[in-house]
Amino acid sequence: MGRARSEERRAEILRAALEVIAERGYRGATLGAVAERVGLTQQGLLHYFPSKEALLVAVLEDRDQWDTGGSGEGRKGWRLELLASLVEYNAMRPGIVQTFSALLGESVTESHPAREFFTQRYAQVRDDMAEVLRDEFGDRLPGGITPEQAAPLLTAVMDGLQYQWLLDPESVDMAKTFRDFLTLLRAGGQGPSA
Amino acid sequence: MGRARSEERRAEILRAALEVIAERGYRGATLGAVAERVGLTQQGLLHYFPSKEALLVAVLEDRDQWDTGGSGEGRKGWRLELLASLVEYNAMRPGIVQTFSALLGESVTESHPAREFFTQRYAQVRDDMAEVLRDEFGDRLPGGITPEQAAPLLTAVMDGLQYQWLLDPESVDMAKTFRDFLTLLRAGGQGPSA
Repeated sequence: MGRARSEERRAEILRAALEVIAERGYRGATLGAVAERVGLTQQGLLHYFPSKEALLVAVLEDRDQWDTGGSGEGRKGWRLELLASLVEYNAMRPGIVQTFSALLGESVTESHPAREFFTQRYAQVRDDMAEVLRDEFGDRLPGGITPEQAAPLLTAVMDGLQYQWLLDPESVDMAKTFRDFLTLLRAGGQGPSA
Repeated sequence: MGRARSEERRAEILRAALEVIAERGYRGATLGAVAERVGLTQQGLLHYFPSKEALLVAVLEDRDQWDTGGSGEGRKGWRLELLASLVEYNAMRPGIVQTFSALLGESVTESHPAREFFTQRYAQVRDDMAEVLRDEFGDRLPGGITPEQAAPLLTAVMDGLQYQWLLDPESVDMAKTFRDFLTLLRAGGQGPSA
């Protein structure tokens, strides 16, 4: 099998795994169900990913890349408006948001294989968010709080809104509500630092 | 078996179920594991709760009661400071927060038995939050947003912080960070309505 074909197959498996995890969660997902969806035997699937955990890690890495633009370089360029656009983009792909939210929820249970990934990811996300906030507000946000204090709040709003939106998309407009949060942040009247 | 003894046994089972769900999630939890923890056979457990779903619903109803004070009457009395105290209280009971967060995460997967519960619960929580915000800010928060617009944000902050705190309690002080959010909200300088 050629390399291009193999890469394509790998991408197909990752997409199928995303779907199965969105439907059943990671603990409920089976390699058999993923294999079936791409027309492989379970043995054939193990050729690409040697274990269920390896498949999960690949799904998470793949997903995260989409969101952050990948490298540390890209992250520095983020601004609050880009974040708002990311939330709008997420609102158009409920399947991926559902997978991510189900995995985040499961990750807090004992010995979950995604726990370390999420713990590291959130430490990184908070650092990035603090930079984004510093770019916009300087060293103080409204009320005198620092970008480092506000970073976990910005992160929490994004995650928390995803659950409310997934449960009840008719009642919760995720993108619009996230923009309301930016309006709140900016209402303190402090402009960007010189 | 007397009624008091039976009530006590029921409470014991609910506590055990909370623990097992915190450890394994709902999909990973088994009635056998819950039964074992309270020294019952699975058959004995089914005497109290006829199915795994019935047990889950009882756990959720029990948990929710603790948080809101139960009746609609109690809810009206909430204020932002009471919410901050609730977050402080939650920070002292990671097991219950873990169960709740794991279930919320799972609830967005297909046909999950907790989905309807959470969908209804969040509609109610957003209504309550809007009332709390109106009591404090009147009809407009900083930036001109309404209590109804801010309600899903306040809710999202509470939930999102729980995940970050459960994953990394050394790095995230959930109660303090929630108070930072209140500081942000209040920084607009608008007092309570007359």
